[in-house]
Amino acid sequence: MQQYFIKGPFQNPIVIDDKETLKHMFQVMRLTDGDQVHLVFEDGIKRLAAVSDSAAHAFAILEDLDQNVELPVQVTIASGFPKGDKLELVTQKATELGAHAIWAFPADWSVAKWDGKKLVKKQEKLEKIAQGAAEQSKRNLIPAIQLFEQKAAFLKTLSDFDQIFVAYEESAKAGEQATLAKGLKACQAGDKILFIFGPEGGLSPQEIQNFEAAGAQLAGLGPRIMRTETAPLYALSAVSYALELDK
Amino acid sequence: MQQYFIKGPFQNPIVIDDKETLKHMFQVMRLTDGDQVHLVFEDGIKRLAAVSDSAAHAFAILEDLDQNVELPVQVTIASGFPKGDKLELVTQKATELGAHAIWAFPADWSVAKWDGKKLVKKQEKLEKIAQGAAEQSKRNLIPAIQLFEQKAAFLKTLSDFDQIFVAYEESAKAGEQATLAKGLKACQAGDKILFIFGPEGGLSPQEIQNFEAAGAQLAGLGPRIMRTETAPLYALSAVSYALELDK
Repeated sequence: MQQYFIKGPFQNPIVIDDKETLKHMFQVMRLTDGDQVHLVFEDGIKRLAAVSDSAAHAFAILEDLDQNVELPVQVTIASGFPKGDKLELVTQKATELGAHAIWAFPADWSVAKWDGKKLVKKQEKLEKIAQGAAEQSKRNLIPAIQLFEQKAAFLKTLSDFDQIFVAYEESAKAGEQATLAKGLKACQAGDKILFIFGPEGGLSPQEIQNFEAAGAQLAGLGPRIMRTETAPLYALSAVSYALELDK
Repeated sequence: MQQYFIKGPFQNPIVIDDKETLKHMFQVMRLTDGDQVHLVFEDGIKRLAAVSDSAAHAFAILEDLDQNVELPVQVTIASGFPKGDKLELVTQKATELGAHAIWAFPADWSVAKWDGKKLVKKQEKLEKIAQGAAEQSKRNLIPAIQLFEQKAAFLKTLSDFDQIFVAYEESAKAGEQATLAKGLKACQAGDKILFIFGPEGGLSPQEIQNFEAAGAQLAGLGPRIMRTETAPLYALSAVSYALELDK
């Protein structure tokens, strides 16, 4: 069944006014009176709803559904600004893989330089991608997108997390493979976990120092060198495997 | 250090004649006499080599390197032909994530129809992508690409594997999450593991029946719905996490 996210708190009945949602509902899916969909308000609860008046874009909520597909921990991924449209791929795939938030920051060795209007435009584009992917993968929430214009603002957030892992190629080379598994085994439901990834050129020694000073652990993600856009997908899959499949 | 795969058995000295490799070596990287690279022959051993005569494209092998980044098991992924260029993304990412072989087959519900010349061309394109990704991620081998023109030929291979997992959305919905973890815990080093993924429309009941008859297990990959090109990346990450990180 088609799922749509509705901005704002739960309402019944609900009149939908988001243009893109309406376009998909009534032009792409051609919903008519009585047709059913799943609606997800900001409380993250999926609800069965039916079109009560297609001309007015009104829906009646029929029942709450007991469908929670969120990871047991809140995973934020933060990438140093990568080149080109890699962040678009990361956003789509990380949303499918259960990310709670998708961040990016200007790393010392980022080649991509985004600021001002460009940053706002990029963020809007990523938000649309996240919403589409969250609807398709039947998430209970749309991952929050945040592109930091200043690295300092990103660094200030580090104290909000229960565990921070830095994907660090040198750790992979040094054979430090157990850090992530140990960390995940120590997780409690609801924990806030941050994964930090470098841009194409990696993280600078100064950045590694800053992250470690904030309590981050350097973690290898296996012995193979992954592209910057692949490592977040590995990390999210590993969290899911460890906490959802291997219980 | 730049790594190149060299077709054929180990030779010292070696004169390289592959055009694309030569182009990258002498035009992109501008190697000159004495410059060092890593060469990997078909035996999968990485070796340090130096240009001995750049005009003749000749290299001297200096020493064997003790660098094995392959997964402890041989993982083949097999996707029902997906739409468009999704298999290109799967090939690049699955190579980074350690796949031993990357296969695709015409599934009952595949929208994409590839045969004859088109299939050959597609396979050649994927082989190039796999080689590039294998060099970049410093693999010891290039994953073998195989696009089956007939599903029957694919089905005949199933008896060659030690374990077969079918990524099945209905298993995910039914909460069957433990199958993969149990299977991976039972793995021995060197085991041949096959993961089968449906195309966009999923696998048909007949296909599920055929795979189960060949000993395949239906396995959920977490509660979220993943796109057809995302599920193989999850599976490979899960294998790496289970067998390389969480030992």
